[in-house]
Amino acid sequence: MRLSQYFLPILKENPREAEIVSHRLMLRAGMIRQQGQGSFTWLPLGKRVLDKVNRIIREEQDRAGAHEILMPTIQSAELWRESGRYDDYGKEMLRIKDRQNRDLLYGPTNEEMVTEIFRSYVKSYKDLPLNLYHIQWKFRDEVRPRFGVMRSREFLMKDAYSFDIDYEASKAAYNRMFVSYLRTFTRVGMKAIPMRADTGPIGGDLSHEFIILAETGESQVFCDKAYLDLTVPGADTDFRDDAAMAEIVQRWTTPYAATEEMHDEGAWNAVGDGDKLAARGIEVGHIFHFGEKYSKPMGAKVQGPDGKEHFVSMGSYGIGPSRLVAGIIEASHDENGIIWPDAVAPFDVGLINMKSGDAACDAACDRLHAELGASGRDVLYDDTDSRAGGKFATADLIGLPWQVIVGPRGVAANEAEIKNRKTGERRTVSLDAVVRELGATA
Amino acid sequence: MRLSQYFLPILKENPREAEIVSHRLMLRAGMIRQQGQGSFTWLPLGKRVLDKVNRIIREEQDRAGAHEILMPTIQSAELWRESGRYDDYGKEMLRIKDRQNRDLLYGPTNEEMVTEIFRSYVKSYKDLPLNLYHIQWKFRDEVRPRFGVMRSREFLMKDAYSFDIDYEASKAAYNRMFVSYLRTFTRVGMKAIPMRADTGPIGGDLSHEFIILAETGESQVFCDKAYLDLTVPGADTDFRDDAAMAEIVQRWTTPYAATEEMHDEGAWNAVGDGDKLAARGIEVGHIFHFGEKYSKPMGAKVQGPDGKEHFVSMGSYGIGPSRLVAGIIEASHDENGIIWPDAVAPFDVGLINMKSGDAACDAACDRLHAELGASGRDVLYDDTDSRAGGKFATADLIGLPWQVIVGPRGVAANEAEIKNRKTGERRTVSLDAVVRELGATA
Repeated sequence: MRLSQYFLPILKENPREAEIVSHRLMLRAGMIRQQGQGSFTWLPLGKRVLDKVNRIIREEQDRAGAHEILMPTIQSAELWRESGRYDDYGKEMLRIKDRQNRDLLYGPTNEEMVTEIFRSYVKSYKDLPLNLYHIQWKFRDEVRPRFGVMRSREFLMKDAYSFDIDYEASKAAYNRMFVSYLRTFTRVGMKAIPMRADTGPIGGDLSHEFIILAETGESQVFCDKAYLDLTVPGADTDFRDDAAMAEIVQRWTTPYAATEEMHDEGAWNAVGDGDKLAARGIEVGHIFHFGEKYSKPMGAKVQGPDGKEHFVSMGSYGIGPSRLVAGIIEASHDENGIIWPDAVAPFDVGLINMKSGDAACDAACDRLHAELGASGRDVLYDDTDSRAGGKFATADLIGLPWQVIVGPRGVAANEAEIKNRKTGERRTVSLDAVVRELGATA
Repeated sequence: MRLSQYFLPILKENPREAEIVSHRLMLRAGMIRQQGQGSFTWLPLGKRVLDKVNRIIREEQDRAGAHEILMPTIQSAELWRESGRYDDYGKEMLRIKDRQNRDLLYGPTNEEMVTEIFRSYVKSYKDLPLNLYHIQWKFRDEVRPRFGVMRSREFLMKDAYSFDIDYEASKAAYNRMFVSYLRTFTRVGMKAIPMRADTGPIGGDLSHEFIILAETGESQVFCDKAYLDLTVPGADTDFRDDAAMAEIVQRWTTPYAATEEMHDEGAWNAVGDGDKLAARGIEVGHIFHFGEKYSKPMGAKVQGPDGKEHFVSMGSYGIGPSRLVAGIIEASHDENGIIWPDAVAPFDVGLINMKSGDAACDAACDRLHAELGASGRDVLYDDTDSRAGGKFATADLIGLPWQVIVGPRGVAANEAEIKNRKTGERRTVSLDAVVRELGATA
């Protein structure tokens, strides 16, 4: 993609309304635009990151055996009266009346709707286990939306829902999602630590938050440093092996880890002084086991092998992809801008023409642009007539993992410079070697 | 994908509420579930088709130079007061109040919001042409939603918006989208005919609807049979060549074509009797050129090469992917079910085990499942314990392009049967040849 033909509205100034670094950098890098209170447009650069995050989430949900569906954003109030949550949910729920004066709402979550789908079709234990997920917009009318897409009113959520014949089977479903989340956050380039959590308005008896550590994080967390060395299950993990899943969950829940609200001073004191890690964290995922909380009032039951009817045991599993994008930036940036992990970078390489209009520079860049593209890399080619200093600043701000810098002096020597955004390391390589060198170092 | 592990809730009976064939078949094939008036969940099979349609739309928008963004579903009423449409839009607009009693609405379209984005960032003709699109949920509170996803209240729309310095440039932008639409509909397996159209609440002076012909279509259309022989521009079409674009549009708008509301008896009588095609049609795309209708009241202007400020000239371009899925079914089905065009089929191949549990059949199917997958095909493997007759009916109903049928007698002879869903043609081939034969005939 040539920058001259792209829509990348970089801001030179720090926007005053942005209180946290991800909000500031997303606005400055032309990733998002605020449209209203807690409401944002994803501009082309931001949309690319969001798509990459969503793709990884999908792949890991599918790998764990979940099936993707797509439920509507607008729900009928009747459904929520069945579960008893319509009145409970309070002012965060955006309530709507249609032209026939019927009560609707913009879904803040989908336990009720997915339970209605389940009970309409599934009648036998033979069709279990079942896990249905979707990635869809949600709305929560927060009193004070802020921090950009980190706490917006309209936000994207991946929410999965598991249905099982009994507690034991649903615990296995919970474990599969737990492991899926470990893999998901690792694949987007983050280290996420699962912590016991409060269940809040979703309800239930068992819940974990997945927290990434970032100096600028929203909340205080306490954990054992042992987490930093735990290995994340590989792509060959067998999600159908309940015992293996349980073993992984066991391993990832044994060392101490807690958010401030669940913090237990007694248990914390038992952690060795050298192993204590008190840090700031950002919640990027939240999983719940709530058993029959919805299946019972809504009559979601199946016939068991015993010939009797059983209310299904359920869990729900959320990741906010829009929030996760902001979380990644909180955890990975420096004073010059964003530092994207490779897997979610909007482009793999920024190609910088230091002197657009110079025939030799243009020719060298055109050639590299084509070669890098042919090697399967997404390239953003800065072919604009801005000054080199401005181009460097933009490249650092938008944080592509690699920069390939082409200037008149280099081209005369048949050379380009390769810069690693994260380490700042620069190397001069021959023009012929650029593609190969990126391959070796990527 | 093994059907025993998939979520495909087939309905045996014809649902009474379905008045048209696409609605009936989508419910029966487990593609969608109704959640409320004019509101649907896309179940796994439907979601796969929707994703394939969206991908083709995206690829063709990108090819034509448009940039993907993602605007929120909820908009502020203020924006619509700026353009003057807030009061005009009537009861189809879903109006909402938030907890602070501010007026919001669920976007029925996005001209206002995208114009606001444009005016905030773009100040010079040098940044033009610009075309921004998104694929996002819309809501129109229809008096009488019906026909399933063909006319629902909450529906998916791809809407693109072009911004240009003057009328001539914006006409070129209109032509690019026109050509992009020809390619898009051809790629999803449809023949779409552009017809002059009324502009309705979007406004403007120039508009075309893209209509696919189907016996069960919603409206009467009149066109010259010459359209059936026109060739659609190839993937190598240069969208930057304004003259080439204009020539294609010229070619595709010269023969007579009109919907009932724009029908002109005089012009129709001039068409040769043997060339007259009066048929039923379904609108699947609609493009508008409306010049300064929004840029003027909303102050969207750029500095021109003459140093003066110019209101930008705009157009908007819509395809409803959810409606398009239904339109494809209306145009491509038989009495047994759906017949998917290859490019949008939810799976490429249905593998039918006529006797699950039989060791030889299971082994042959496991092998074919693996081989077909390795050859890059998406396979739905019916490994359930249903009877063969039921499996055949399901395969025809969900309409995958190819069926590979494995039974005890065939396996004993080292053979399987291959059936083409569209033609009904069946051939017996050796088990070793299945993958190769599908390759030759696909």
